[in-house]
Amino acid sequence: VTSSWDELESLLRDLADFGQALALMSWDQAVSMPPKGGAARARAGATLEAEYHRRLTSPRIGELLADLEGDSKLDEMQTANLRVLKRDYDKATKVPEDLVKAIAEETSIAYQVWIEARPASDFTMFKPHMEKIVSLKKQYADAVGWEKDRYDALMDDFEPSLTAAEVAPLFDQLVQDLVPISEKVFGALGETPPFLSQSYDTATQIEFCQWLVKQLGFDTEGGILEESPHPFTMHVAAGDVRQTTRAQADQLTGSIYAAIHETGHALYDQGLPEKWIGLPAGRAVSLGIHESQSRMWENQVGRSRPFSEWMLPHLKERFTTELGMLTPDEFYRGVNHPERTLIRVEADELTYNLHVVLRFEIELGIYRDELAVDDLPDAWDQKMEKYLGIRPPDHKDGVLQDMHWAIGHHGYFPTYTLGTLNAAAFYKKANEELGDLSDEFRRGETSRLLEWLRENIHKHGYRYEAKELTQKILGHPLSPEPFLDYIKSKYGELYGVSF
Amino acid sequence: VTSSWDELESLLRDLADFGQALALMSWDQAVSMPPKGGAARARAGATLEAEYHRRLTSPRIGELLADLEGDSKLDEMQTANLRVLKRDYDKATKVPEDLVKAIAEETSIAYQVWIEARPASDFTMFKPHMEKIVSLKKQYADAVGWEKDRYDALMDDFEPSLTAAEVAPLFDQLVQDLVPISEKVFGALGETPPFLSQSYDTATQIEFCQWLVKQLGFDTEGGILEESPHPFTMHVAAGDVRQTTRAQADQLTGSIYAAIHETGHALYDQGLPEKWIGLPAGRAVSLGIHESQSRMWENQVGRSRPFSEWMLPHLKERFTTELGMLTPDEFYRGVNHPERTLIRVEADELTYNLHVVLRFEIELGIYRDELAVDDLPDAWDQKMEKYLGIRPPDHKDGVLQDMHWAIGHHGYFPTYTLGTLNAAAFYKKANEELGDLSDEFRRGETSRLLEWLRENIHKHGYRYEAKELTQKILGHPLSPEPFLDYIKSKYGELYGVSF
Repeated sequence: VTSSWDELESLLRDLADFGQALALMSWDQAVSMPPKGGAARARAGATLEAEYHRRLTSPRIGELLADLEGDSKLDEMQTANLRVLKRDYDKATKVPEDLVKAIAEETSIAYQVWIEARPASDFTMFKPHMEKIVSLKKQYADAVGWEKDRYDALMDDFEPSLTAAEVAPLFDQLVQDLVPISEKVFGALGETPPFLSQSYDTATQIEFCQWLVKQLGFDTEGGILEESPHPFTMHVAAGDVRQTTRAQADQLTGSIYAAIHETGHALYDQGLPEKWIGLPAGRAVSLGIHESQSRMWENQVGRSRPFSEWMLPHLKERFTTELGMLTPDEFYRGVNHPERTLIRVEADELTYNLHVVLRFEIELGIYRDELAVDDLPDAWDQKMEKYLGIRPPDHKDGVLQDMHWAIGHHGYFPTYTLGTLNAAAFYKKANEELGDLSDEFRRGETSRLLEWLRENIHKHGYRYEAKELTQKILGHPLSPEPFLDYIKSKYGELYGVSF
Repeated sequence: VTSSWDELESLLRDLADFGQALALMSWDQAVSMPPKGGAARARAGATLEAEYHRRLTSPRIGELLADLEGDSKLDEMQTANLRVLKRDYDKATKVPEDLVKAIAEETSIAYQVWIEARPASDFTMFKPHMEKIVSLKKQYADAVGWEKDRYDALMDDFEPSLTAAEVAPLFDQLVQDLVPISEKVFGALGETPPFLSQSYDTATQIEFCQWLVKQLGFDTEGGILEESPHPFTMHVAAGDVRQTTRAQADQLTGSIYAAIHETGHALYDQGLPEKWIGLPAGRAVSLGIHESQSRMWENQVGRSRPFSEWMLPHLKERFTTELGMLTPDEFYRGVNHPERTLIRVEADELTYNLHVVLRFEIELGIYRDELAVDDLPDAWDQKMEKYLGIRPPDHKDGVLQDMHWAIGHHGYFPTYTLGTLNAAAFYKKANEELGDLSDEFRRGETSRLLEWLRENIHKHGYRYEAKELTQKILGHPLSPEPFLDYIKSKYGELYGVSF
């Protein structure tokens, strides 16, 4: 270990302290901040972001990176830190500060416009802002640099080094198989089970979720669960991982499965290598790997028959009058009841990825200059009809439904489906190595699975890039088969259809 | 307005953004942070404090202060900003960074030791840390500079420009009158009303407090009330004022009066001049003025007969079985039932200030080198006997009871009693100008009083120093008479005694 390393580590730990403050500010804004605090918070966020950027791009970091390049005294995690830092540093120094500021300002305006445009279903109101963001994001991609697709430079912010050329064939195969599968399932579907839309006390829902996430292994000495309208997880610092769930009286399973989903994220964050948290290699690999954890806990675990059987009596304790007569089979069917919905965030396991592929294709079209922002609504509605067999009656529940485009998260959507595919592939592998987990799940025991994830994924932090990690775990690259097999087997059994 | 001013304002607004982040981190630590997040939070706090200090003491600030000195184009608030900033800047630049760091480190250690020493009632464990802090604080006072008393330099951090020579005679007179008054009252005192120690659902207590603080004018669009074991108020930013109350099943009036007290602080913060919040002249004048607001709302308003009469039926709505039979007179007597307690934070209006004077005299003795840290326990116990007629059976509820000394808040205690004296004097003045407020309070209406406070105190921010403000409002300097008159009249009537 050289003294250059010590100096670099100390600069990076200071940098992480500003990251911690920013994470906390963002958590607080979503969970606690009173509305009138918004303007001052926006200003403070920008000031701290600027300080963060100033420190990350300081010439001294560049010098130390150069000093340490190829230093043979560094261990594997130190080298990983340099690899990740170099990418962060190069990106941050390549993008002109004016452009960073222009994107921050325009997305902040666009978000406010979107807040108004969506309920009014008014795409023309949002259009000029979307055009401006696309133009700025193109400049951003060009500043960062790209090879085959400009879009690759955008995806790189969320799923490093992933390319459209890799995603497109995966997603094509997925759509090709998923569309006929989902049509068959919808053809065989019965009524929506009434317990799904009954009314349940929201405070009790939250109390149940608090209890449930602890059962799943969430460490409440090092984390909290609170309520917010849009569930999310925030890794504030070492020993401080926060998650939220939402609670609505008529959506009991909504709060529960949001909590299990976020717990998947939170368990990953709590399993990262403590020594390195705050440093580049101490973070999670990518959004696609992060989402594999949340999806696996939500679906492969939470929506499995044995786990749902274990959960039901604990729910009945709290909702005796509402759920007293429900059978385990009815409950299992209920939490796996798919619906043709226009809204991505309400979509089920079966159709969720169709919503994602639609967005990916549209984004790619835009950044390949094959599609104009003007064409978005039509493209959206046509693909919706093609993939899901339904047509949005308005833009509110169509092209304007997500905040991602307004806040500049272009190239983000594909990570949701990558997460789904990773989840199924990792889960299959875990089952091969651990044997059938059903009996344990039926007793609410998920610790062997968690241990496997800790060992194979969490404890490595960002030692490996996503593709390398996937290859290490699976022995081959990611493919959609495990997910498609899982869906076919589960929905085939549930609705008595064969594919 | 000159361009130097614009540059200075911009630097100060950036500085305030770091202040906002630090305030939020501190709020979060008390209210939300999971225990394992403590170490990372301490590090981040120190890093942001250092950045804050670096920016406040930057040579450019010094140059701009010099440029703007005596600038006749500046308005009154701009000039006030320069006055306050100059003091902040001079102090921050006079104290060597090593000393700042040593104090931060030693108080952080001492606090951890105190956490253990208090329950163990072990003063010898705490003693070496207290000695070290006193020695560091003496160096601090010498670095900042002082005239008559070294202690003045410490008080200045909480109550700018106040001197021991001013405080001592005020407190002497107070003790001289309060001791015989309280002895008479305790002689005439009946049983403790049983409703004070019954059990009340804590969630309902919090819900009542949430409702109550809104009635008092707390703007919940620009603030929140949460629960924490030690109630406090935090002015995070413009439009973001936060308060907490505590809730224990057997202390119904504890949660209510803590909430009213903190609302007094919060109303002041919410009434500060919006344009200047974050800048030196946009903050509250001093702790003694701040505490005048909290004490006035808690005692002159909240513990008055008419206001307590208004509150009771609203409490009965929530606690019908527990309070159904309580009469307004019993309730009023209950919330004004004094007790000879060893613990300052549990003390009532009558005896609270005796606890404070004791601490002031001990602190002054230490910083005048008339008292050694070794002598603290004896000095404490003797004064306790002299002023309150009781002797602590151990150090836990004696000399070790407060965290102030451990965290380096030496010179802080006097502001509590200054607040009490200010509250009584301001309230008397408000009544002279507004007429009797009893009828309004009996209807739960406190808006005319709030308006008066806004106009006379809140809206000025830090335009005036404390003594100047007091003089402006009262027409003469602060004296203990209004408080003593208030106590004599209230307790005389309550317990049928004359003084």
